[in-house]
Amino acid sequence: MRNTNQHTGTPYAATGAWLQGHEVGHRSFFTFAIQRPFTLDSGASLRDVTLVYETWGTLNEDQSNAILICHAWTGDSHVAGEAEQGHPTPGWWEGVVGPGQAVDTNKYFVVCSNVLGGCQGSTGPTSPHPDDGAPYALRFPAVTIRDMVRAQAWLADSLGINTWHSVIGGSMGGMQVLEWAITYPLRVKSIVPIATCIESSAQQIAWGAIGRRALLMDPLWNNGDYYSAAPDQGPWHGLAIARMIAQVTFRTDNRFNEKFGRELCDTNFHSDGVDLFDRFEVENYLDYHGDKLIRRFDANSYLYIGKAMDLHDVGRGRGGVSRAMSRITVPTLTIGIDSDILYPAYQQELLHESVRQNHPLTRYVQISSPEGHDGFLIETAKISTEISNFLFALEEASS
Amino acid sequence: MRNTNQHTGTPYAATGAWLQGHEVGHRSFFTFAIQRPFTLDSGASLRDVTLVYETWGTLNEDQSNAILICHAWTGDSHVAGEAEQGHPTPGWWEGVVGPGQAVDTNKYFVVCSNVLGGCQGSTGPTSPHPDDGAPYALRFPAVTIRDMVRAQAWLADSLGINTWHSVIGGSMGGMQVLEWAITYPLRVKSIVPIATCIESSAQQIAWGAIGRRALLMDPLWNNGDYYSAAPDQGPWHGLAIARMIAQVTFRTDNRFNEKFGRELCDTNFHSDGVDLFDRFEVENYLDYHGDKLIRRFDANSYLYIGKAMDLHDVGRGRGGVSRAMSRITVPTLTIGIDSDILYPAYQQELLHESVRQNHPLTRYVQISSPEGHDGFLIETAKISTEISNFLFALEEASS
Repeated sequence: MRNTNQHTGTPYAATGAWLQGHEVGHRSFFTFAIQRPFTLDSGASLRDVTLVYETWGTLNEDQSNAILICHAWTGDSHVAGEAEQGHPTPGWWEGVVGPGQAVDTNKYFVVCSNVLGGCQGSTGPTSPHPDDGAPYALRFPAVTIRDMVRAQAWLADSLGINTWHSVIGGSMGGMQVLEWAITYPLRVKSIVPIATCIESSAQQIAWGAIGRRALLMDPLWNNGDYYSAAPDQGPWHGLAIARMIAQVTFRTDNRFNEKFGRELCDTNFHSDGVDLFDRFEVENYLDYHGDKLIRRFDANSYLYIGKAMDLHDVGRGRGGVSRAMSRITVPTLTIGIDSDILYPAYQQELLHESVRQNHPLTRYVQISSPEGHDGFLIETAKISTEISNFLFALEEASS
Repeated sequence: MRNTNQHTGTPYAATGAWLQGHEVGHRSFFTFAIQRPFTLDSGASLRDVTLVYETWGTLNEDQSNAILICHAWTGDSHVAGEAEQGHPTPGWWEGVVGPGQAVDTNKYFVVCSNVLGGCQGSTGPTSPHPDDGAPYALRFPAVTIRDMVRAQAWLADSLGINTWHSVIGGSMGGMQVLEWAITYPLRVKSIVPIATCIESSAQQIAWGAIGRRALLMDPLWNNGDYYSAAPDQGPWHGLAIARMIAQVTFRTDNRFNEKFGRELCDTNFHSDGVDLFDRFEVENYLDYHGDKLIRRFDANSYLYIGKAMDLHDVGRGRGGVSRAMSRITVPTLTIGIDSDILYPAYQQELLHESVRQNHPLTRYVQISSPEGHDGFLIETAKISTEISNFLFALEEASS
């Protein structure tokens, strides 16, 4: 199941990238050559860009069986597989990706890389600045979804993959999917954007921006310079609040009612919970999710990636959304979730409408689920069925 | 239009309250007698409770034309009328309440009091503690919607109003409306709850709790003790963030798209807004609303009133929601707003379903509006029509 990478240590002339691949635990590290700085949408450039990725399955002779999975905001490369060192939880899309699954790793060579700007090994604000070896922190330049995708393209080059059989992802992963198809229309044969959008809406920006404001207010954030602080002296309160806001938008009113209702979370109550600081069970749940995130995610990465999502607009610099979307001519399976309040189904419908004429296999499916936005992670059976059918139709059409 | 209060200075035997009414500017102050402490749901009690209220119109001979308006979270008693000292903006329900309006002040004697726990003159965390004259701050006990309503009942007693012709309010005002009808079924002849709920949902609690967490994180909140700090040294960042969260839930995705879309808010951009700290217009709007609130509202009051809303559950201590709602046998006009994401229309339907058999004039109206929850403040024409029709039907039925 591990990728045996034949390019290790080989300069890859086409992009000037140098793959210094090596494996640590189960992960592979990919480093761009410093000869060609990686220029970002902001105009800034990065040296020594590293992407950490995982692979499953084997790339075939003609490199035609590669599928790229793109992860969401606080996701990572660990799409499938058991918990392991560096991945305290099993793969986030077990049930969709794996041997015999919809994205069948017996058949496809599956790749997922941690995004640029993140904190799971790929270059981001926690990485050492080449000048002084100290973390970039706020010296890290703003990144966009396009920057993430261009970095992935260099990785694809180095893996010898010219064209992806499919690029698949939900939420921010879906934004990358769209940017792949628009930036590199000849390098994708099909795409599956899920619970995402062609441009972030004002409400999405508002939620993201408020979370960032909360994080910035934490005095321990210290203008982004907290890496040398004691472990308990990071901006964890601020990051937790940002996460709590997101967590509510990831779920639904109905689901919260079912799970928590008006249950109080402590048992030793006086006066029926009528105290300013008594808590309901749903607050306990939010605390849990806030606490879980601060143990695994960097606060500055949260800022940078959140901003990248706010900046997501496939039309920027391309003459508008319609012109950008017209570049997508490959089969496109768009999946929306009916209860999603963060990336509402109407956004998937808009996405689909803008490409539906472009290929006969292009289709839209709205999944019925009580899980809200998180349905893209939870409803693996429904999503698998749709992806399976789509990949099968592609195969039929090409045979 | 000003209330000439005939009870000023008269002890009101029925409740043991002493009305020390006097007018400052256009407002009236009402103080409970200290002989009878005001006991709260939490078990704590308050001495020297003050309610500040405004009135419009004239109470008739048989005291049968009194209508109580209940305000929402950061609202106040200034329902109608021009901007004036202490009220920098015109009445928040101009167009619904006034001479010749749906709630016609030529006909009705209209009362609105600032809620207990607030910061507009009624007793709250900013008020002097009777022991030492310093602000209560966190020494203030938790208050509930029922506490607010019981205080209003004492005010009604002192005004000589035994029975309200109607009690009307939206959002937290609607919670008070329900508590009036359930706590004092013989003291209301009709009610109009708007965009509210019979019990706060887990999602509503979540939004409220996250806002409070943000406020508590502000180091200048200082455990609630900021009243002697310099004017710019209050917990304004935290309060603004709490308000921003609320503001998004008050509006809608569609409306935000129409108003702001993806407009950037500054004009001197480099690189298309691709910077961690560049802002979109919607962020500017949120800043504006955060900033506006911190200039007019007390941070601790925001905590206490928010908690009161989370604690809202008409069934608490009454054998459940159904039993509580069965006490409402008066004509009830429930108004929901189709685009409301904070108090979704299904909550108004539940409310209506629980009382619909109880009176033939009881009805439910769902208003179509793009304004979301704030529609209860903005859609004055539509709301006026419904209230007019309802009050007219009551009159017809009783004539």
